[in-house]
Amino acid sequence: MRISELSRRSGVSVTTIKYYLREGLLPPGRQTSATQAEYDDEHLRRLRLVRALTGVRGLSVSTTREVLDALAEHTGDTHRLLGLTLGSVRLSEESAGKAPEAGEVDAFVKELGWDVHESAPARATLAETLTTLRSLGVPVDRHTLLPYARLAERTAVLDLDQLDGLTDPLETAERALLLTVLLEPALMALRRMAQENESARRHTS
Amino acid sequence: MRISELSRRSGVSVTTIKYYLREGLLPPGRQTSATQAEYDDEHLRRLRLVRALTGVRGLSVSTTREVLDALAEHTGDTHRLLGLTLGSVRLSEESAGKAPEAGEVDAFVKELGWDVHESAPARATLAETLTTLRSLGVPVDRHTLLPYARLAERTAVLDLDQLDGLTDPLETAERALLLTVLLEPALMALRRMAQENESARRHTS
Repeated sequence: MRISELSRRSGVSVTTIKYYLREGLLPPGRQTSATQAEYDDEHLRRLRLVRALTGVRGLSVSTTREVLDALAEHTGDTHRLLGLTLGSVRLSEESAGKAPEAGEVDAFVKELGWDVHESAPARATLAETLTTLRSLGVPVDRHTLLPYARLAERTAVLDLDQLDGLTDPLETAERALLLTVLLEPALMALRRMAQENESARRHTS
Repeated sequence: MRISELSRRSGVSVTTIKYYLREGLLPPGRQTSATQAEYDDEHLRRLRLVRALTGVRGLSVSTTREVLDALAEHTGDTHRLLGLTLGSVRLSEESAGKAPEAGEVDAFVKELGWDVHESAPARATLAETLTTLRSLGVPVDRHTLLPYARLAERTAVLDLDQLDGLTDPLETAERALLLTVLLEPALMALRRMAQENESARRHTS
C-alpha cells in the first residue's frame, strides 16, 4: 500500500509516519520509484505498536526505538529473550543515577531470593522511589516492601501464564513486552479503584 | 528564610521556584519589602512534594496543581478525603475520552462488588488499556483481569494499613497521595523483577 493508505488504515498522519521513518521507528518501505514506496501489513502492525508505546506509556521516541531494537535483535532461548526485552524497558524517562538506597535494594532482592540481573533498571527505580519517599517523610523499609514483593510474585505468575502456548520466540517477546508495558496503567487503575473500595469498607458503617 | 536559602536547602533553582510561585504551585512568601519575601519550612516541604510529583511521576504543572488543590481544599471525613484525593489524580497525561470498553469496565467493577465512584478516572484508564491491547491483538477480558483485580484488593489493604495511626485528616490525605502516586514506580519495578525471576524459574532447569 502507499503511505496515504497506511495513514488512513492506522489513523496516523502522513507527516508523523514520515517522522517515524526518519527516526528509524518504522522500517523503510519497498521503493517503487524515486518518490514512492510500498508498505505492507507488517508496517501497519509496527505503526500500531509505536503508537501504543508513545501514546499509552508516553515513551519518548528514543526509548521507543530502544525497546523496538531490543525486540528485533534478540533471538535464542525464551528466558534470555524475555529478560532482555523486559530489562531493556526503562520504567520512566528519568535518568537513573545511583541512588543512596541502591545497596539496600540489592540486599532486599537477595533476601527475596529473586534471580534478577545485576544491572536491571528496576533496581534503580526502586532505590529512587525509596529515596524520594523518605525525603518526604514517608517511612518505607524492607518490612513495608516485603508483602508488596510477595504480591508482585503472584502478579508475575499471571503475567507469564499469558505467554503459555506461544511458540515463536519473537512473538513471545513482543507479547511479553506489550503485557509488561501496556498493562501497567491498567494494574495501577485497579489498585486505585481497590483503594477507594477498601477505604469505603473501612470508613463507612 | 530568603528565596536563596529555600533554593539551597531544596536543591531547586531560584528560577524554578519563581516559576512555581507564578503558577501557584507554591504559596507566596511573607512580603518583607517591595522586593523581598520570607519563606518557611512549610514552603520547603511543599517544594519537595512538587518536585516529587513532577519528577518521579512526570506530572505536568497543571496536573500537579490539581492534585495539590484537591489536597488543600477537602477536609471532613477520612473516606471522603481519601476518595477525593485519590480520585483527583489522573493516571496519565492522556486526555480521557470515552473508550468503547467503558461499559465493559463498569460491568466488571460491579461484578467485583467494588464501591467506586461513577466518574473515577481509573475506569477510563482501564477501558483505554483494553482498547489498546486489543488493537494490538492481545486477548484481554474479564477472565484475564479478575485475578489481577483480586491481587489489587490485597495491595489496597497494604496501602490503607500504612495510614493507620494517622489522625490529622490532611496528613492522612497527603500520605495517601504520596503512597498512591509515588509508590507506583516501585510496585511496577517489583513486578518487572518478579517477572524476570519467574521467567528464570520456568525456563532454566
